[in-house]
Amino acid sequence: ARIALLPGDGIGPEIVAEAVRVLQAVADRFSHTFELSEHLIGGAAIDAVGDPLPPDTLKACKQADAILLGAVGGPKWDDPNAAVRPEQGLLRIRKELGLFANLRPIKPLDALVDASPLKTDIVRGTDILFVRELTGGVYFGDSGRRDDGKTAYQEMVYSEAEVERIVRLAARLAQGRGGRLTSVDKANVLEPSRLWRSVTTRVLADEFPDVTLEHVLVDAMAMHLLVRPRDFDVVVTGNLFGDILTDEASMLPGSLGLLPSASLGAPKSEGGGPGLFEPIHGSAPDIAGTGKANPLATILCTAMLLRDGLGLPDEAAAVEGAVHDAVGSGVRTADIAAGAASVTTTEAADAVL
Amino acid sequence: ARIALLPGDGIGPEIVAEAVRVLQAVADRFSHTFELSEHLIGGAAIDAVGDPLPPDTLKACKQADAILLGAVGGPKWDDPNAAVRPEQGLLRIRKELGLFANLRPIKPLDALVDASPLKTDIVRGTDILFVRELTGGVYFGDSGRRDDGKTAYQEMVYSEAEVERIVRLAARLAQGRGGRLTSVDKANVLEPSRLWRSVTTRVLADEFPDVTLEHVLVDAMAMHLLVRPRDFDVVVTGNLFGDILTDEASMLPGSLGLLPSASLGAPKSEGGGPGLFEPIHGSAPDIAGTGKANPLATILCTAMLLRDGLGLPDEAAAVEGAVHDAVGSGVRTADIAAGAASVTTTEAADAVL
Ligand SMILES: CC(C)[C@H](C(=O)O)[C@@H](O)C(=O)O
Ligand SMILES: CC(C)[C@H](C(=O)O)[C@@H](O)C(=O)O
Repeated sequence: ARIALLPGDGIGPEIVAEAVRVLQAVADRFSHTFELSEHLIGGAAIDAVGDPLPPDTLKACKQADAILLGAVGGPKWDDPNAAVRPEQGLLRIRKELGLFANLRPIKPLDALVDASPLKTDIVRGTDILFVRELTGGVYFGDSGRRDDGKTAYQEMVYSEAEVERIVRLAARLAQGRGGRLTSVDKANVLEPSRLWRSVTTRVLADEFPDVTLEHVLVDAMAMHLLVRPRDFDVVVTGNLFGDILTDEASMLPGSLGLLPSASLGAPKSEGGGPGLFEPIHGSAPDIAGTGKANPLATILCTAMLLRDGLGLPDEAAAVEGAVHDAVGSGVRTADIAAGAASVTTTEAADAVL
Repeated sequence: ARIALLPGDGIGPEIVAEAVRVLQAVADRFSHTFELSEHLIGGAAIDAVGDPLPPDTLKACKQADAILLGAVGGPKWDDPNAAVRPEQGLLRIRKELGLFANLRPIKPLDALVDASPLKTDIVRGTDILFVRELTGGVYFGDSGRRDDGKTAYQEMVYSEAEVERIVRLAARLAQGRGGRLTSVDKANVLEPSRLWRSVTTRVLADEFPDVTLEHVLVDAMAMHLLVRPRDFDVVVTGNLFGDILTDEASMLPGSLGLLPSASLGAPKSEGGGPGLFEPIHGSAPDIAGTGKANPLATILCTAMLLRDGLGLPDEAAAVEGAVHDAVGSGVRTADIAAGAASVTTTEAADAVL
């Protein structure tokens, strides 16, 4: 299988390097051959060639079977008014590869649940799979200025087809889990949310009679996540609401450094391309190069890559088991050590290996 | 002074009735005359006259010096595809009265901080004033359908003038508090956010050199609120982000039933009309009529009404002091009793009186 590596900025290169060691160990143990190639993205690509998603990178990604991304961005490229910005690379790769679904599992590890900002008895046992729409909504709506630049607009927009495909994917995932789907919108105010809600209701009724559907308003959901996170199974929502809610939810486990994500398109059978796997955390430029970065989220991304990207569930389970064992036996990088003794980036990966 | 009362739906009438008793006590003690008049809004108005904001109500509000609202909505009127919906009354009254600023103080009471879903040591000492833009953004953008109804859109839009007035108000409030302003946007993706950020930067530099300004992305803010809520003073943001973030933040104190809000327009000197004061919580139809509703948020709204609406700071302080004393001495309605003995709606107000 061909795997495209996009290390990106800040701690990106360090954590991708450790994940590569894990992929190589999987290749050895299970007798696979992974062809790995490295490409520029984000700030690093802006510095090198003036483009956060160079044509070569895009081409290599399209030819790959799966993509592993570190992180992009940093203060150096932070001006929101700059013509070229690192996150444009992210947005464009999502769009160009048709990665319309972002999956983020939020499942606090028992060994770390004390690190949650929430009370332990609220958060323990939480097991949510967020499914965020990733190539539509206001992110990709028509935008610009009017009135001599004094008014700015950007259109929030969803079509039935866009809602159908993400809801189908989420409902299928719910069938493989607890059988419950929560759809989040703002249907009391927004027209795209009203369309979202009616399409979701129809798809579930017509195609997934075995999945229980609940509609929740986005403001209410922001509250529920803090007082009854255990009540949710699969949560599907639009691009902007998903951005905010998944980041809110990412605090629940108390260990952002352990959360992976997958961005998927249509299945291969329907002409879809490779999935993209990346940790939820950012590029943390302040600790880049210090050996403090936690590689475990990226290593857990390789597990998602193996399962959802390459169809290798046993290999994925082996990686996940090794990470849980390492954490269970007390291996802690600085971010999850709560002031106690911690290991370096490489030592954490060693423990997994 | 003339005060328009809009009890609304569910528990609205019960809690407004208790707040009225407090207003009358203030009138007696401080020798004021408050002319109170009651008007229809929300579901109750739909049932009575088929309009969630009847012309009579709007007229009475425009003639009042301040408005006290209970809550609107309930399952009976919940269909998001219905042509007439209770929340349209809320959105229209905001727009018609030019109530462009929604103020929500989030300050957990020490006596109740144990009820927070967050760990006590994270949340204790939090004191945030949210200032949410309330008459612009995607809430009031052009909306509709295309492609035979198969695509829905709604435009997120902000003008420089809209951003300037809300930022000025927030910065002035920061001057009277800790001198720090956090502006929340999504400037890395949205054009209206880029305008928001540049206008905010300019207004602060030109007019408020004494206020410290920080820009935070909305997804990051959703995280910060859970791990370092104490770091924020005044937070200003747009309509949609404010809706989500203030509801998230409303969970921090662990006592939603104690949170008031104020919606304000331009000052009277600039032709502005009355402010509108309402609790953050909803209409809780499930407990309407049972005597379980907590009237304290609405009573705290009368304090904001006295201070920000009628310019009576001593009267406001008296009400706030009485509420804090009541809670401090152990008065608890069911929602904040944590299973222990609780008082009724009327008994809670008695304690304040
Ligand atoms: C960097 C930014 C454009 C991006 C987003 O908003 O989608 C990020 O926050 C994310 O969630 O992956
Ligand atoms: C009822 C709804 C339209 C309203 C809003 O979104 O503004 C409510 O959530 C609020 O925050 O006052």
